[in-house]
Amino acid sequence: MYQSFNVTARPEQGPPRLEALRKELSSAALDGFLIPRADAHQGEYVAARDERLSWLTGFTGSAGFCAVLQNIAGVFIDGRYRTQVKQQVAEQAYTPVPWPEVQLHDWLKEQLPRGGRIGFDAWLHAAGQISSLSDRLEGTGILLEPCDNLVDRIWEDQPPAPMKPVVAHPDAYAGESAADKCTRLAKDLENAGQTAALITLPDSIMWLLNIRGSDIPRNPVAHGFAILHSDARVDLFMAEEKLAGLSDHLGASVTVRPPAAFLEAVAALNGNIAVDIDTVPQIVAETLGERLVPGGDPCALPKACKNAAEIEGSAAAHLRDGAAVVELLAWLDAQAPGTVTEIDVVKKLEELRRRDERLRDISFDTIAGTGANGAVIHYRVTTETDTVLKEGDLLVLDSGGQYLDGTTDITRTIAIGTPGSDERAAFTRVLQGMIAISRLRWPKGLSGRDIEAIGRMPLWMAGQDFNHGLGHGVGAYLSVHEGPQRLSRASAVPLQAGMILSNEPGYYREGAFGIRIENLIVAEAAPRIAGGDADRDMLSWRTLTFAPIDRRLIDADLLSGEERTWLNAYHAEVAQKIRPHVSPAAQAWLDDATAAI
Amino acid sequence: MYQSFNVTARPEQGPPRLEALRKELSSAALDGFLIPRADAHQGEYVAARDERLSWLTGFTGSAGFCAVLQNIAGVFIDGRYRTQVKQQVAEQAYTPVPWPEVQLHDWLKEQLPRGGRIGFDAWLHAAGQISSLSDRLEGTGILLEPCDNLVDRIWEDQPPAPMKPVVAHPDAYAGESAADKCTRLAKDLENAGQTAALITLPDSIMWLLNIRGSDIPRNPVAHGFAILHSDARVDLFMAEEKLAGLSDHLGASVTVRPPAAFLEAVAALNGNIAVDIDTVPQIVAETLGERLVPGGDPCALPKACKNAAEIEGSAAAHLRDGAAVVELLAWLDAQAPGTVTEIDVVKKLEELRRRDERLRDISFDTIAGTGANGAVIHYRVTTETDTVLKEGDLLVLDSGGQYLDGTTDITRTIAIGTPGSDERAAFTRVLQGMIAISRLRWPKGLSGRDIEAIGRMPLWMAGQDFNHGLGHGVGAYLSVHEGPQRLSRASAVPLQAGMILSNEPGYYREGAFGIRIENLIVAEAAPRIAGGDADRDMLSWRTLTFAPIDRRLIDADLLSGEERTWLNAYHAEVAQKIRPHVSPAAQAWLDDATAAI
Repeated sequence: MYQSFNVTARPEQGPPRLEALRKELSSAALDGFLIPRADAHQGEYVAARDERLSWLTGFTGSAGFCAVLQNIAGVFIDGRYRTQVKQQVAEQAYTPVPWPEVQLHDWLKEQLPRGGRIGFDAWLHAAGQISSLSDRLEGTGILLEPCDNLVDRIWEDQPPAPMKPVVAHPDAYAGESAADKCTRLAKDLENAGQTAALITLPDSIMWLLNIRGSDIPRNPVAHGFAILHSDARVDLFMAEEKLAGLSDHLGASVTVRPPAAFLEAVAALNGNIAVDIDTVPQIVAETLGERLVPGGDPCALPKACKNAAEIEGSAAAHLRDGAAVVELLAWLDAQAPGTVTEIDVVKKLEELRRRDERLRDISFDTIAGTGANGAVIHYRVTTETDTVLKEGDLLVLDSGGQYLDGTTDITRTIAIGTPGSDERAAFTRVLQGMIAISRLRWPKGLSGRDIEAIGRMPLWMAGQDFNHGLGHGVGAYLSVHEGPQRLSRASAVPLQAGMILSNEPGYYREGAFGIRIENLIVAEAAPRIAGGDADRDMLSWRTLTFAPIDRRLIDADLLSGEERTWLNAYHAEVAQKIRPHVSPAAQAWLDDATAAI
Repeated sequence: MYQSFNVTARPEQGPPRLEALRKELSSAALDGFLIPRADAHQGEYVAARDERLSWLTGFTGSAGFCAVLQNIAGVFIDGRYRTQVKQQVAEQAYTPVPWPEVQLHDWLKEQLPRGGRIGFDAWLHAAGQISSLSDRLEGTGILLEPCDNLVDRIWEDQPPAPMKPVVAHPDAYAGESAADKCTRLAKDLENAGQTAALITLPDSIMWLLNIRGSDIPRNPVAHGFAILHSDARVDLFMAEEKLAGLSDHLGASVTVRPPAAFLEAVAALNGNIAVDIDTVPQIVAETLGERLVPGGDPCALPKACKNAAEIEGSAAAHLRDGAAVVELLAWLDAQAPGTVTEIDVVKKLEELRRRDERLRDISFDTIAGTGANGAVIHYRVTTETDTVLKEGDLLVLDSGGQYLDGTTDITRTIAIGTPGSDERAAFTRVLQGMIAISRLRWPKGLSGRDIEAIGRMPLWMAGQDFNHGLGHGVGAYLSVHEGPQRLSRASAVPLQAGMILSNEPGYYREGAFGIRIENLIVAEAAPRIAGGDADRDMLSWRTLTFAPIDRRLIDADLLSGEERTWLNAYHAEVAQKIRPHVSPAAQAWLDDATAAI
């Protein structure tokens, strides 16, 4: 079992740890210390030893940070975690702060009106983050000072750094050899007059060298750093013991060096060095000084635009994943309300996914939230919160698999028994937004923020909305949350053919119920249509995810003819594609679940 | 007659003027000179003496600029003017450059690979524009150098600066006294630690002091500059002869000084001085140096958010303007195809508007384009281009009035005889986008760019789009194009209650036909609806414009039930509101034109 249901953080552990940290603050003569969620690689998932935020505060969300001062400790969390944070942190010790509505610099100015020294670990914060925070604190007398990690000082049983083996990722899945990728990207560096690029994101390193690791849960990556030189040579800073048997795959142009040598190697570089200032550790940027060119991570966009082999791999993985989900849905419908819990569902689903020999992990801890738990956007069930699926409740089931040929991420909301009318109306509007995005064609050059409203409009018209983005990028057997592509007001990156994204509108009524429907979709050149502008290139989506959408939750009277046509065509395709891969019992269930409405 | 149909620029005048300018370049030892469309006040309309761009090149559009080098002269124009520019400039002398797709710095780098000195008039370019251009030219060896205006040197009969009288704008229309506005804005300056703000936009000065001028056509403004001090005193730099009889209205806290004293007064200011770097002339920013704070124009947002008196004034002006438009449409429908020209329509419409005693000007030169002229987005008919309205053609009629109580801007597309099926299908999709925006409710805090896609989606789905923004801000008896509010991908300014915008999707098939439908709409707090999120503030629109939308151009089968309901309700309101204000003949026509479909 990949997933565990242990309570990993308890609110009552927070206050004594906070007290110990404040003693360290005093002895370091600091007025505050910042605890980010991130590790040195700015990934969303971190290794156990890097779980500093949850160890200190109890908050286990995938984004957020804590600012500890002597008289207050603010836990900054975005809209997805407003409900969850209240359940996870000790309220007498920690103060939830709504972020980004409240900005850290404004909060610090309010809390420390007369100046102060704020410590931070210069490996864990990106250079861009520190420089923008410094700019905003100008004139306040508040200073940011790099220092030892004070949490590590008080964390006595902090786990060691992960040391898991790395494997080659076959070219058949990758669609392009590592040597070709290095040559292609090195040429860009040369053309831009840059001598090297620093790559500090593990998924970029994995993509570039066609390797996969397992240093951190859910993401097939290994910790390390890399320098790509403009002559296509690569210095890979990674523990040798992880790379046993890989020297042939890596080849002569890749030199493996110990991670501890990275900063020294950076110091020795000449010329203009490209870095992504939004992810490079502050200490690395500091070391580069004048040589730093804010050129971005050269792997980011090529990695985001999947090639034909990656798209076909992802499509194939989605069919097998869809079959597992259909088996789960068929099983679930056969259970009477009141007899199954959230954990039962998570276990059953993982068991079904594990039947596929290409599964390597789940792509994140399955979210299975029933009733009010469904309104906790990133709910993770534990033995303490486990709840029975009751008549009239909804179940939000958001899950995915890491398969050798692709990464999946799917959400379905399921009616337990007979759903209420509020639930059906809201579900139908969420579905309408999801269909509007699925059907969309749009002019090339637009970004996620330019089209996101289309997926929200049906909810807006009913006075409703949801507090998360409409979709995120997804990797090819890599990160389930991959940048830079996003369907979000925050994303100005033009959408391009080959980008895989999620399309996942939702609706959440705190204390009552949650709804989310999610398919993965890949952008492609839209076919020309009669009457369309001759000189206007457009993009459209191809859907990758195939599993039924619960018809009991759809108020068909609210659907337009085009929406109904889309839904019936989608369900027909689900039946046709998934039927051959499921058990006879699931086939019978599937026939009902995909009948036209 | 406000509008003239003279040909104001002729392509053949361009080449000799360009030759003369290149001689000036040589004698100034410059490699190039920039000719913006703007004057020192960065307005969209300029006085005759400031029409340098059209005098030199022939191009008369409301936006664009020319970069003259010794071997090439690029005329940079946006999507609205791609067709028009080809008709207006001599192609052997001037090269149209699609902007912003091609950026000036990239173009200069390509044309002047080995460096070069580019002259510019530091009064006519905003500081932000020059500093961003300089940044982008870094490392190219290309230098920007302020110099005398070389066009003025060769323009022998350049008209003098305008010197028209200024009048008081009654508080009953303004809704707030000038003294109260100055006090309110001065308090903000004080709170921000600023000693003064520079106001260089004429419409901001008019708004702040409750005055109106007529220095430039179509905009009720007078040229001048102002300094608002943090004690609410104002220095107004404006020719005294314009301000005869206004000393009581202006009061003791406003000191009138000659325009020529402005730069000297700026030099003498102490402390932090707020300016809008996107509109302040480069020479003024240079004079301020370190004292400059990029605080924006303090009038911009208060002016954009209309108060109750301004909204009611605008609504009243729209009813009278709608009556004039209805008389025009009724008259036009009574004329046989082939008997009326574009100029006839423009003249008739102005005659009808002029019957209203509160009309002070038209708000821009009426766009009346039939057949292929309709595809020229900002077409202005001249005696040379005047075209007969023929059977089967469409007429795009975009016009507005400057009334004492409000500014109007309305576009209707009218079928001459029986329209073709392509035209009807495209018109219906444009209408669907316009209805979608009109009906929209959206969460507070979003900007134009966050919702614009909703007005384009029906066209996108047919493989079509249009090359202009969906809408612009509109003033209260001020500029018909007013910032900062816009319905555009370029606008990140949150929409707020009281902002008036246009909602004007269109469709243009070059060489064939054009379509545009435009209403003005004002944002207001959306009423709560049952089932809506309790804690989510939303905005919605109230429509200000009332005139029939041509039912002969609507393919009713393409409309959804909600769209049909909106259209019929809108037409019922048009009939009810406009009927009392029109002639019996127009009443009869109106009854037909607003019948339910």
